[in-house]
Amino acid sequence: MRHTSKGADDDVRMRGFAQRDTVAAALAWLDAQDVQDAQARPLATETIPLRNAAGRVLAASVVSDVDVPGFDRATMDGYALIADSTEGATAYTRLPLSVIGDSMPGSPFVGSVSAGEAVRVMTGAPMPRGADAVLPAEWVETECTSPCKISALAAVSPGKNMGRRGEDIVRGTILLEPGRILRPQDLGVLSSVGQGEVRVIRRPRVRLAVTGNELLPSGAHPSGFHIVDANGPMLSALIERDGGIVDFPGLVRDDPSAILEALQADADVVIVSGGSSVGIEDLAPVLVARHGELAVHGIAMRPSSPTGFGRMGNRLVFLLPGNPVSSLCAYDFFAGRAIRALGGRPKEWPYRAIQGKLNRKISSPIGRLDYVRVKIDGDLVDPLAVGGASILSSTTRADGFVIVGDDSEGFAAGSDVKVWLYA
Amino acid sequence: MRHTSKGADDDVRMRGFAQRDTVAAALAWLDAQDVQDAQARPLATETIPLRNAAGRVLAASVVSDVDVPGFDRATMDGYALIADSTEGATAYTRLPLSVIGDSMPGSPFVGSVSAGEAVRVMTGAPMPRGADAVLPAEWVETECTSPCKISALAAVSPGKNMGRRGEDIVRGTILLEPGRILRPQDLGVLSSVGQGEVRVIRRPRVRLAVTGNELLPSGAHPSGFHIVDANGPMLSALIERDGGIVDFPGLVRDDPSAILEALQADADVVIVSGGSSVGIEDLAPVLVARHGELAVHGIAMRPSSPTGFGRMGNRLVFLLPGNPVSSLCAYDFFAGRAIRALGGRPKEWPYRAIQGKLNRKISSPIGRLDYVRVKIDGDLVDPLAVGGASILSSTTRADGFVIVGDDSEGFAAGSDVKVWLYA
Repeated sequence: MRHTSKGADDDVRMRGFAQRDTVAAALAWLDAQDVQDAQARPLATETIPLRNAAGRVLAASVVSDVDVPGFDRATMDGYALIADSTEGATAYTRLPLSVIGDSMPGSPFVGSVSAGEAVRVMTGAPMPRGADAVLPAEWVETECTSPCKISALAAVSPGKNMGRRGEDIVRGTILLEPGRILRPQDLGVLSSVGQGEVRVIRRPRVRLAVTGNELLPSGAHPSGFHIVDANGPMLSALIERDGGIVDFPGLVRDDPSAILEALQADADVVIVSGGSSVGIEDLAPVLVARHGELAVHGIAMRPSSPTGFGRMGNRLVFLLPGNPVSSLCAYDFFAGRAIRALGGRPKEWPYRAIQGKLNRKISSPIGRLDYVRVKIDGDLVDPLAVGGASILSSTTRADGFVIVGDDSEGFAAGSDVKVWLYA
Repeated sequence: MRHTSKGADDDVRMRGFAQRDTVAAALAWLDAQDVQDAQARPLATETIPLRNAAGRVLAASVVSDVDVPGFDRATMDGYALIADSTEGATAYTRLPLSVIGDSMPGSPFVGSVSAGEAVRVMTGAPMPRGADAVLPAEWVETECTSPCKISALAAVSPGKNMGRRGEDIVRGTILLEPGRILRPQDLGVLSSVGQGEVRVIRRPRVRLAVTGNELLPSGAHPSGFHIVDANGPMLSALIERDGGIVDFPGLVRDDPSAILEALQADADVVIVSGGSSVGIEDLAPVLVARHGELAVHGIAMRPSSPTGFGRMGNRLVFLLPGNPVSSLCAYDFFAGRAIRALGGRPKEWPYRAIQGKLNRKISSPIGRLDYVRVKIDGDLVDPLAVGGASILSSTTRADGFVIVGDDSEGFAAGSDVKVWLYA
């Protein structure tokens, strides 16, 4: 597939796509790229401080080189002793014990416990040498003449109320596997084995090029025949949601050299918003076809049919329609999937799905996939009565969307449907 | 409730809690604080750039002061004309039209369209004066002698393939309501009406004070009887997950003046990790009781029973046990709930719940709530065979947890249970 620039074939190009790929065929190309990447050049990694690692994707197994804890410790406040010293103790048969010192967390008792002796311990304190149990403070009566005398009111068995060295983590244990999206408690475990840094998959760098001479930059007020860029802020937030790092230096003119420069940016992924169709001002597909590979252009779906993607060297390139609903939908189907995959995350949508009952039918032709925005009212799913790909506010009024596959004519009123919830 | 400092009552304090609040009573106190806050001093707000607003909580309604689009526009590539000019056109009855110019997005046709005339338009371009429909490029035959002559191959009806001014957003519409957690597409809509900034609820500032003389800072290697802080990195990540801003300047010595300084930090919430029980080194509850209000201390749950909370002036203060599983659980039940509420977010856990079938029974005494870590294997829910609150690795091996309420003796093997999934 190859396009020439403006001129004789303008009219052909204005006639629309000669044929459209199915969504499945488009996804198959995309997923094959990921496989190729993983084989040809494993996903790049980086080492970052643990404090920044929440939500990042672990790149390599973490094996502990220490026991946690590194010593036997008390798991209750009380008295460390030899369990035998309490044998037969009850509230009526109190057994006297001599308190020979304290063991506090980080500051152990120096010395050894013999029969009839006890060391006062706090939870977490190292067990003194010789002791094999902790008698909880609740089971002790104290007479604090100096030195303190205590009496055991109950017996404990050996090993009671203490934790052994390595009870949390044994040296050599694989703590976490590659691909793990790091949870808060994972950071705690990594910290406890002495890992101040962690090796994670590098976040994909995404160059966002928003084109359209009719656009004013976000922050401007709409004026005259100029509209304010909605896709830049929206796509930036989507890319970040999916773990990408956004490079969005500003709007790009509808000019071949400006667009080509963006297509050749130092990035893992380039997303061009706008000018993705086959009209005379749709420059990006022509440029990708000429300087790289335009693998997919035109997809049998609504909205987002004028979507393209391919490669420019090592970069994956996505050409998203300028209409903002199309842009959102095409991002979620294709570009977001690639960004998530490159970053080692699950390819699936990061949306939660629920089941609901349609209150009105949805019709859709065979051969085209439809993305239908819906509102949820209790158990009922209400398709919004707007079709236009330009109506971005439909995606803020909607609670989510229903997908009608290209092998389906839609759903009758009352059908159970799966709804993907925006979040 | 009032504690005195170390001395005569050490032994009483080592005996454990005289009584424990139920989780419900503890939550009732906490939720009453939020209500009180909301009445006494509405949640503080701040204005931030739109580009940083994804995931933030909107503080005020946003009303559009413009129509979007601000003009009628083409929704297809083709020819803008008076629909009547195409009346009767078919592939066999071609009707000639004179092309009198172009209208491009942001660069309208200057002039007016009369019967028999057409203006070439791109999707999104302003409709020329006089035109009331767009004839798609696919329905046109072109002869490009100069000037171009085109023929309509089909008829269009008035209003076809064009969008009216305000079709996306009508001036005066309430776009988004307060409390909305801003989605990527919300940023797009806000941008399109000219909002470069957005008023959001301020993120709660949380001072994190991790105490324990036995602790080494995260990043150190465990050594001798010192263990490395796990709670600091874990709690920092949890606080950020819940929308808080973490102030964690480093470990705090088990020293009354150091802990008091943290309790009086410039913050909305203070979290003290460690030293929360009733032992002789448990300083924080005594300090809160003396200098503020220790409303809850000791909760009928496992783990996390030695949890306390209250107020120091305007600050909500949480005293979390040093044992890391207790710390996680107490954070999720209490501190996280307060942080989410202060930031305008739903109080509920940010965990997804699923149903599963227990493969072994869970026993729990009446009067105590239990937090049971479980693994998921298909549909089966497997309680982990570890009880200890010190075994943080149990929360990384687990996929989630099951709650046994204090009115329940647990669940029989084969029961359907609700599992909250860690994420």
